[in-house]
This record gives sequence, structure tokens and C-alpha cells, in this order.
Amino acid sequence: MIIMKTNATKEQIGAIVSRIENNQLNAHLSKGEERTIIGVVGDGRPIQQDQFLHLPGVDRIVPISRPFKLASREFNPKRTIFPLNGLEVGGSQIVIIAGPCSVESRSQLLETAHAVQEAGAQALRGGAFKPRTSPYSFQGLGIKGLELLAEAKEQTGLPIVTEVMSQEMVSVVKQYADVLQIGARNMQNYSLLSAVGKSQHPVLLKRGLSATVEDLLMSAEYILSNKNPNVMLCERGIRTFENSTRNTTDINAIPVLQALTHLPVILDPSHSTGHWEYVTKIAQAGIAAGADGLIVEVHNNPSEALSDGGQSLKPERFAELVTHIRGIAEAVGRSLPNPKETIEANVDVFGMGNG
Amino acid sequence: MIIMKTNATKEQIGAIVSRIENNQLNAHLSKGEERTIIGVVGDGRPIQQDQFLHLPGVDRIVPISRPFKLASREFNPKRTIFPLNGLEVGGSQIVIIAGPCSVESRSQLLETAHAVQEAGAQALRGGAFKPRTSPYSFQGLGIKGLELLAEAKEQTGLPIVTEVMSQEMVSVVKQYADVLQIGARNMQNYSLLSAVGKSQHPVLLKRGLSATVEDLLMSAEYILSNKNPNVMLCERGIRTFENSTRNTTDINAIPVLQALTHLPVILDPSHSTGHWEYVTKIAQAGIAAGADGLIVEVHNNPSEALSDGGQSLKPERFAELVTHIRGIAEAVGRSLPNPKETIEANVDVFGMGNG
Amino acid sequence: MIIMKTNATKEQIGAIVSRIENNQLNAHLSKGEERTIIGVVGDGRPIQQDQFLHLPGVDRIVPISRPFKLASREFNPKRTIFPLNGLEVGGSQIVIIAGPCSVESRSQLLETAHAVQEAGAQALRGGAFKPRTSPYSFQGLGIKGLELLAEAKEQTGLPIVTEVMSQEMVSVVKQYADVLQIGARNMQNYSLLSAVGKSQHPVLLKRGLSATVEDLLMSAEYILSNKNPNVMLCERGIRTFENSTRNTTDINAIPVLQALTHLPVILDPSHSTGHWEYVTKIAQAGIAAGADGLIVEVHNNPSEALSDGGQSLKPERFAELVTHIRGIAEAVGRSLPNPKETIEANVDVFGMGNG
Amino acid sequence: MIIMKTNATKEQIGAIVSRIENNQLNAHLSKGEERTIIGVVGDGRPIQQDQFLHLPGVDRIVPISRPFKLASREFNPKRTIFPLNGLEVGGSQIVIIAGPCSVESRSQLLETAHAVQEAGAQALRGGAFKPRTSPYSFQGLGIKGLELLAEAKEQTGLPIVTEVMSQEMVSVVKQYADVLQIGARNMQNYSLLSAVGKSQHPVLLKRGLSATVEDLLMSAEYILSNKNPNVMLCERGIRTFENSTRNTTDINAIPVLQALTHLPVILDPSHSTGHWEYVTKIAQAGIAAGADGLIVEVHNNPSEALSDGGQSLKPERFAELVTHIRGIAEAVGRSLPNPKETIEANVDVFGMGNG
Repeated sequence: MIIMKTNATKEQIGAIVSRIENNQLNAHLSKGEERTIIGVVGDGRPIQQDQFLHLPGVDRIVPISRPFKLASREFNPKRTIFPLNGLEVGGSQIVIIAGPCSVESRSQLLETAHAVQEAGAQALRGGAFKPRTSPYSFQGLGIKGLELLAEAKEQTGLPIVTEVMSQEMVSVVKQYADVLQIGARNMQNYSLLSAVGKSQHPVLLKRGLSATVEDLLMSAEYILSNKNPNVMLCERGIRTFENSTRNTTDINAIPVLQALTHLPVILDPSHSTGHWEYVTKIAQAGIAAGADGLIVEVHNNPSEALSDGGQSLKPERFAELVTHIRGIAEAVGRSLPNPKETIEANVDVFGMGNG
Repeated sequence: MIIMKTNATKEQIGAIVSRIENNQLNAHLSKGEERTIIGVVGDGRPIQQDQFLHLPGVDRIVPISRPFKLASREFNPKRTIFPLNGLEVGGSQIVIIAGPCSVESRSQLLETAHAVQEAGAQALRGGAFKPRTSPYSFQGLGIKGLELLAEAKEQTGLPIVTEVMSQEMVSVVKQYADVLQIGARNMQNYSLLSAVGKSQHPVLLKRGLSATVEDLLMSAEYILSNKNPNVMLCERGIRTFENSTRNTTDINAIPVLQALTHLPVILDPSHSTGHWEYVTKIAQAGIAAGADGLIVEVHNNPSEALSDGGQSLKPERFAELVTHIRGIAEAVGRSLPNPKETIEANVDVFGMGNG
Repeated sequence: MIIMKTNATKEQIGAIVSRIENNQLNAHLSKGEERTIIGVVGDGRPIQQDQFLHLPGVDRIVPISRPFKLASREFNPKRTIFPLNGLEVGGSQIVIIAGPCSVESRSQLLETAHAVQEAGAQALRGGAFKPRTSPYSFQGLGIKGLELLAEAKEQTGLPIVTEVMSQEMVSVVKQYADVLQIGARNMQNYSLLSAVGKSQHPVLLKRGLSATVEDLLMSAEYILSNKNPNVMLCERGIRTFENSTRNTTDINAIPVLQALTHLPVILDPSHSTGHWEYVTKIAQAGIAAGADGLIVEVHNNPSEALSDGGQSLKPERFAELVTHIRGIAEAVGRSLPNPKETIEANVDVFGMGNG
Repeated sequence: MIIMKTNATKEQIGAIVSRIENNQLNAHLSKGEERTIIGVVGDGRPIQQDQFLHLPGVDRIVPISRPFKLASREFNPKRTIFPLNGLEVGGSQIVIIAGPCSVESRSQLLETAHAVQEAGAQALRGGAFKPRTSPYSFQGLGIKGLELLAEAKEQTGLPIVTEVMSQEMVSVVKQYADVLQIGARNMQNYSLLSAVGKSQHPVLLKRGLSATVEDLLMSAEYILSNKNPNVMLCERGIRTFENSTRNTTDINAIPVLQALTHLPVILDPSHSTGHWEYVTKIAQAGIAAGADGLIVEVHNNPSEALSDGGQSLKPERFAELVTHIRGIAEAVGRSLPNPKETIEANVDVFGMGNG
């Protein structure tokens, strides 16, 4: 949709129509009292908007079609559901992923893994490779961390969600991970997005700090267009002027994403607040707003954590969170599997094959 | 707290200590490996920070005390509760205020008022004076609008929440309003804040579009310091880069405010989203996050609304919202009065005296 | 421009066309492969967009006309120029307004006024009424401050720019002020905007902390539509996530405003940075970007200032700023009057009449 | 610096002091009327702040030392200067890098390269690998694009600035590039930052869309700590609520960076505005604010550009920009080499060796 200036001449309008038609597109003119608007109607292929911006008489360009396609509900009206630990991500049950920010040691990981499982988590998170703002901060245990995650999975049956930070590590990390996490800082690392797309492994895609909802869906499009349909989106807070919390939870994004896309949407209340005191309340808000799940940082001893201790819950507080979430889930017509069922499901699904 | 540069000299440090002591304050020095930090310790009176910023050797100033006092939980650990329509705002019951953005006509207001009352609202909102971005938009019915609000109150018993836009109108508006609303655009109109403070009337103070939580509490401080304790704070969305919704609901602000202040906190999901489709989900999120109430735009015929039609609920959708909120309220250990009780309460409190 | 959903039915489209025509507007249909777009063509009166948002089949509404009219270059292609102290604001010469944040005392104001005049300022700023975030901060000297400004004008001949904070004070403040300043926090105080519009006095309108360029122009429209053409706009920094400076100077807004409006545009580098060390560089940037002038905080003794000391320049640094600005002005084909000429001009314009 | 709550007990304070001392750090207590503050004094190693946040009685933590070291002026008071095409980046002369957003074809690149050289550019930019929001947009010519850049360098002598998007491509891209560009979306791709650090090749590091100045310096620290000192920083606009331009040029960041770091700082006015009409004015503002150079998008035929056509200058407008920049540079005591000198310098430096 090309909006002409109020003083655009007939010749200028004619020149634009010619250019549109030379591109095998159709032009629809709409002449108002004030100005003319030219609709550019195509066959579905993306149109190079910028080519019109320089032409004389053009005021501005307003895009009409949404730029994402495979991720849209219009393309795929049925919700995407994919299995995780005997559950359906995006189904009627709420999925809770929990665990430490970083894998720090065998005892830290195993203690935390058992604790979150008992409290009712259905998957274990833990970073082996950590993107850190400072080169002087702890960068993760690397492969050793992946091996510890494998051991935790063996002991608990919990599937593993862990971050992959670069294209070249995808093949290694996918051997250990049930879900590949793309971190917020890499949301627009397109080489990496294409690589996890090709991996055909389930992906948890975190929204970037300053990514719009549309940007997030465009990044999902990179994965989907590589024929990988199993993507869950994660709101984890955006950067705003408010500084009483680490980030601003964009709670609106939950129902907006549920309206725009068929992909499951979860919330990370640990990063989106940055303070453990607020995590439970915001987790409740997320489920009340329609999120399909949560990813929560839990540490067996947050005061000793090498990263994100301030936003990690102790296991006992996480157990309280699960109880509260159960109540909210029921109030919105959904449910949480109870811890016992989960463990049995683990045995069925993972116990033999992966033990 | 004055942070000196790493290369600050003894003389520079001495000069600052002298200035502090000349101001009848105490200086506490803390010398690290890298730099010296000077704590300025006072007697509770605010300290003019800027006076130190120009002095040689100073790197920056870090304030330690919070700038609000009367609004803080540290000053007043007990939560503020005040009565509205037989309910306690800030108490265990959730308060729902509903009604049209603007009072447009007698039939519009009365129909909507009856509808929201039947659905379970405990107070009626409606703007008689409207702050509009454009001088060409409908600016409200003014005094005529206030009179219609009085008629709606007479018929339904619902107390009235309506905006006052300027200091000189406070005395008029308070004759009709049970709660004086300060709109987001006027959150830092200090003449107005002082005037509603002096009015001794209950106040609903909306957060400005780009106000921090601390700014909001400083504005409340203007009202409280005029000896008016009955202030409820309202999160109504902040301005960010995200443009899929009109504003970004800062859901974090709900638990943050509940931690910092003793004042009741409510949410306006209509303005914080700007789209009626998202209002119910975000209202649910607000109560799940710990809000004490909601203020919701409802219009008997949103397609004909003169303002904010796109974010207004129809009465039947509002009734659904109330039902959903009841479920969430119970899940977080709170409750909604049922519609019948409210009407009876109205009769007790307002029926005779105001009829 | 109404964008229909991709699955909108013929009946839904028909219903919208009927509604448009019932409103005495014209509908232009544009049918693409994917969806239909309906242009709503009017006669220049503003269209109530919201009324269409609720209708079945509507995806979203895209406004085409800009909402401001009198402020636009399309309405008035010739630049607005108005006189100040023998200069033309918006003309080829750069206007520099300088002085203290607040009027604090006779000696402070007079010393600073003489100093900025000698350095080359063409007008004196100084706040008598101060909007302060905290009720416990210095709120200005009030009428006494206005009287001191009058004395400074008598002694130096410099015209006075001072803030008016509420509608009811306009008639008082205009007796002392040559230019009425509307502060950032009051940019959307519409009662006040209308009042300064009616005053027929020149106005300096500061952009709000989170106002878009369009919001600023809409606020100017309130003044212009009250038949007051003499408005200069002031960029003073916006609120963003960046916290190394007090605000973020939106330097882009200078050329954007110069393209959209005929009104003069100035920059306040003191508030837009918040640190005196950066004021001169950002002042230079503003003139290089095309600003018509500057408003700069200068204090004879910033370390003792009761407000904004950290961003105020000492008189000698302000003199350096003027020298640098002269160089930049010449590099962009403009000029600064030299200090001597200014003083003579003062004598002509103000010496006799106001002395 | 640990700020205790006002009601913290002696035991809580004691527990924190013990923990500090157990970590081989020193605790300095500062007791005020209201609360106690505990300074944690170390030996320069980073302190794990989070470990204190969970302890009873702690209100918040305020970091005192800046988290970047090698990039700071305190560490290295002398400005970093490194050679490019016979010029000194960071020296008294302004460096202008220009060229197309993407390399699209041989004729497009060569025409543009000759045009920018004649106009006075000292280096050629052009993307062979393009990070694009949409998987359906043109992604660059890849290796073929690098070969065309090599041909352009051979013909014009201009050194090449081009983006590297992933760690594994560093060794290939550095064979063609004189300066490796890290794009805004990859500013926190730490694998990539370490890789370009190890490459020992000059780096142009662009600020991320929502990165603070401190985040940018932390990313530079990744490169510097890999013993690569030749880093130039590039402001290219940040994401804010303002939408009249594509991004908001953070002009304040220029003098702020010049104060905090010894590294050269340049501005990209093409991305920071997103509209060719504003590029020249904002380029002028950047140099006036103290930038050491510019990187500007120029295309021989912007209306046909495959990316960023709307913000690209035509060669003749770029020539005007250079003329204007020359004037501003002189006004701030710097200079531009004149085009002739540049060509001769090219012959000296690159003519024989690279021809």
C-alpha cells in the first residue's frame, strides 16, 4: 500500500503504476479528497517495498500482509502440539520446565533435578554453554555439563532442555538435549536458527530483549521453513525504561501470540522479573493469561549459584509455585499432571529406552 | 553515596568531606583498592545530590534511600484499606469498576450502568471531561456528563469513579464523584495532585505512560503529604517499542508495588492492551499477579462509542470476564462479592442517603 | 483504511460498506489475492476509527491521513517565523536561550543573567514555578521569582522565557513572560494548552518524556487551533532503556520535525543529556542537525543550585559553548548574532518601553 | 555495595560480614540513621553479586566498579588509534566508510565503489552475508560477494569493511576484509566475538538494537580480552517507542563513549534513521558530537536495491554529504582528507601490494 503525498502529480502516480506493472504486480488506485493511495497486489511472493520509497511523490509505504506465513494461524488454523515426556506441549495440560540456570557441579544438578521432579516439573533445564555479558563471568561447563545433564535424565527420567549457542555445536548438543533452546541474545542469529531448523529437533525459541512479537514470529519462520514444525515460543521479558525489575514481562504477548500463531507459548518468569520474590506471582499471571507452560530457574542453593542466583527459587518455593499454578490452571480450564503420574510417565517413555 | 574517580586525590576527597560537614551531615569514608566511596549520612531530610556532581574527583552519585516516604511499606507496614460501596478496597475482596470510557448520552450511560451492575461491578466509571490527543476529538459532556453520572448512581446505587483534569475543577467534580480519577497524562500535574490531596476525597491515581514505579509512588506522595490517605494506584500500561498492542501491561508492577507500598493496586486491562479481545486474559493475569481490583471499559454498543470503542467490552463479554475473575480470585485466596450481595450493600450504603 | 481478515465473508464486507455509507462517507474496495482492503474516504472531518474495529471480519485499521493539520507543512508550506528580541525565531539566525533552571535568589539570577547576555544569549530562561517529582523538593519562588525575572529583564534587556504550570496561572505569568514555556510533564495537559493558545502569547512547547513526534504535533495543534500561531517546539530527550544519560536526545526528531511542520524547532541539551560534560557536544549536534535554536541551563554556581545543578553549565563554559555553536552555525549556512549586536537590539526593542 | 533493609537485624548484618570474609574479601560497614550499608572490597577480581541477594535483611545490591576493564579510559588513558588506508582511525581526521548495504552484482558494486571513492570515502562497505529478519528476503551473494569486493578493492584501492555472521566463517571472511564488521544482531554472539578477537583483524563492532552503552563496551571487552586491540565502536540507533524513524539515533552515546573508552567511535546514520532524507543531517550531528567517522549506505540506484534502498543515498547526494561533513569537521577542529590525497594514499598502501 503506497501512500502518495497530498501534492503528488498525475505523472508521479503514473510512474509508480508503471513500475508496479513492470514487476508483474497489479496496482489498485484509490483516490481520496486529500491524496491517492496505490495498492500493490501480488501473487503471494514478498514484494520489495523499498524500491518505491525513493520515487517522487511517495509519502510512505504501509505493509498489509503479515511478513510471517508458516507461523501464522491463517496458514495453519490448527494449534501445533508436540510431545514431551508423555505430555503434549500446547495441549490442555500445562508444561513446567525447571532447573538451574547453569550446570555447575554433579551434586548441584542432581539435587536440583530430583527436587524439581518431586515438586512436579516435567522437564529439566540447565545451561552447559552460557552466553554471559562479561568475558570474565562463568561460561558454563561445556561438554562436561552436557554429560551431567545426561546423568540427571538417567536418574530422573526428565527430558532435557538446554541451550545451543552456535551453529557448529548443534550436532553435539542435540545428542544430549530433548529440546534445543535458542537464547534471547541469539534470537536473530540466523545461521543458528537455520541449523536448529535442519536438526529436526524440538526447539524452545526465546524472545530477544528488544524483539517485537512480529520479530519473534519471523525468527520462528526460519526454523519452520527448514521443515521443523516443533517450535515453542518463550516470552522472557523485554527491555524498557522501567528498572525496578530486570526486564518487563510483556504479558500482553501471551494472548497476542495465541491469536497470531498456532505454536505453543510459554513464559519464563525468572528472567522476565529477575527477582525470585516476584517469580511465583508472574508465573501465575502467565498461566492466567493463557500460556501453555513455564520455564523456571530453580537452584538447590541459590546463594551459591554461579549465575542468576538472585532470580532462582529454592526447591521448596518452587514446590509452592507448582501448587499455586495448579489452582490457576484449573481456574482457566486446564490442568497440571500430578507429580506421581509424571514419574510413571517417565518410566514408560524414558525408563527403559534411555536408562 | 558519592563514588569518587579512581584517580581522585586526597585533596579532592577532603574538599568533599568538608562540604558534607558544612551542611551538618556526616561523611563515612570507605577506601577500596580502586577507589574511595563517601557515604553522606543525614537526619532524614532530603539531600541536594546535585551539589556534589560538579566537584573535582567525583565519578557519580548513587542514591541509597528511596525518595518516597509516606507511600512506603517501611513507613507504614500495615496495608491501607478504604471503603467503597460497602467493600474494602485493598481488602480480601476484589473490586471491579466498570463503565464506558466517556459519558455520551443518558441512554448509553444508564443501559451500561445497569448492565455492569447486573454482571457484578461494584462501581461505575465514566468520563465527563476527557483528555484527548486531538483537539478535534470528542472532549466529553462536561457538567452534563457529571449530572448523568449522578442519575446513574441514583438508579443503580453504584458509586462513581470519574476523572478530574484540572485543579480548578476539583471542587465541582468531587460533588459528583465517589472517587476522583487522575489520568495517566496528568500523573505529574503537581498542582492537580496537591488539589486532590487537599480535597480529602478517595483518589484513583493512574500510572503515566512512561512513569517508573518510583515516579508513580512519588506522585502518590504528593497526595498523601496533603493528608489524604485514600489513594489507589492503577497500572494501565506503559509505552515501549512493542506495537502489537496499544501499550505494554507492566504486570511486574503489580507485585513490585505490593512489595514497596501499602496502597491498594488495581489494573486497567482496557488501556493496557487497547484491544477488547485481550482484555479478559489480561484482567485474569492482573488478579493472578495480586492486584486488588480492576477498572474495565464496558459500552452498551462499542461500535458506536465516541472514544475507545476498540478496547471496550460489550456487557455480555464483561459478564463473562466477571465469571472468569471469580475463578482466578478464588485460586489466589481472594473472592468477589456475588452480584446480589452487592446490590443489597448498595441499598444499605447509598440507597437512602443518596437516593 | 480497513484491512479485512483473509477469511472475511462477502456479507461482512457488505456490512462494513453499508456502515461507511450510512456515515456519509465513501468506501473504496481493493480486493487482493489474500484479502480485501476497504478505503474510507471522507470530506476531511476526522473519522471515528474505533467504530469499525468491533465489526466481524475486520483485522485492523491503518490510518492514512496525519492527525495534525494546522501544524503540518502540507497545510502551511511556509515556515513560521516570529520575533524575539529583535531576532526571528525560525529564521536564518540561531536563537540561544539560557539561564538557571530555577530562580533561586536575586543575586543568583542577576549574576547569571548578565553572564549569559555577555556570552551571547538572546533570551533568559528561569523557572519561578517548578514541577518537581518530589513534594519535598524546592518548588520555586513563585510570584517573587517572576518579579526577579522582571528585574533581570530591566537590567539586561533580555526577554524572559518561563514556565506556566496551570491554566489559572496563565494570566499572571504572561505579564512577566515574553515566551510561555509548557514543560514536558504538561505536554498533554490540554486545559493548559488551550489556555496558552487563547493567551495569544508566544509559546515554547517541550516534548514529553515519552511523547512521539506525532503526539508533540497534536499538542501544538491545541495551541494553533486556539488561533495562536507563535509556537516553537523543543526536543528535550525521551525516556529509553539507556541509563548512562538522564534522557536520550532524539536527534532524529530535529530533521523529522523540520520535514513535518512549519514551526521552529529548538533543542534543550541540558535536559536531554542530564550531564554538563555532554551539553556542549550535544548542542553542537543539534545545530548541525538543523535546529533553529537552543535552550541551555546556566548557573553562576552550579554546585549550589537548588535544582539541576549537575546539568548546568558555569558561565565560562557557556561562553565556550556559544563560540562552538557559532562555528557549527556557519558550517550549516546559518549564523549567530554577535553579542554586541544583541545588546544594541535589546536597547531598541526593550530599553525604552520596558525600562 | 550491599544496601540492607531499614529493619535488618545485627545478626543479619553479621552473617553477611562473615560470608564476605569467608570469600577473602573485606567488609566496610557504614551505619546511617535509617539503614546500614556494607561495602564489599575486593582485589580486582569480579565479585559474584547474586550470592548476597538471597540473604535475609538485604534490600538491594549497587555495583560500584564498572564491569569493563580493557575498554575503559581508566585502564588505558591514551586513545586507541589504528591505521586504515593510510589514515588513522581515531586520529584527527574523520574516516568515512561508504557503499551498498548488500553486494548485489558486479556492476552495482563497481559503479558504487568508484562513485564513493570519487566523492571522498576512505573505505568501501558492502555485505556479502546478510542477516535478514525474513527467511524469504535476499540473504547476500556469499563467497561470490566477497570476490566482487576483492575486485572493487583492486580497482579503487579502497579497503573493505564487510560483515561476518558466524564463528566458522571468520577465517574465510578475513581473507577479503580489511575490517571485520560485527552486526547489531550479533553484538552479543559471544562465540563470534571471541573468534574475531582471536583473528587479530581490525573489527567494527555495531551496537545492538537494545544494547546499553555498557553492554557495547562489555562486548568490546570480549574482543580486547582476546588480545585484539583494534576495535572501533559504531552507534547505529536503538529501539524506542518513537516510530517516525526506523531507529532512534542515540547521539548522546557519542560523547558518553568518548568519555568512557579509548576506542574510536563512529556513527551509522543510515541505519540510525532509516530514511535517506535524514542521513546527511544526522551524519552532520554525529561529527559535531565528536564521532571519529561515519559508515554510510550508498547505492548507485537505490530504487532497485535488494535491501535498505529506502535509507541509501544516491552517489550525488553522498558527495554532498561529504562536502557538508568537511565543513562540520573543520568547525570542530578536525579534518577530512581531500579525495585526491586519499587516492594517492591508496596507491601507496594498497596499489602495489594488493593490486
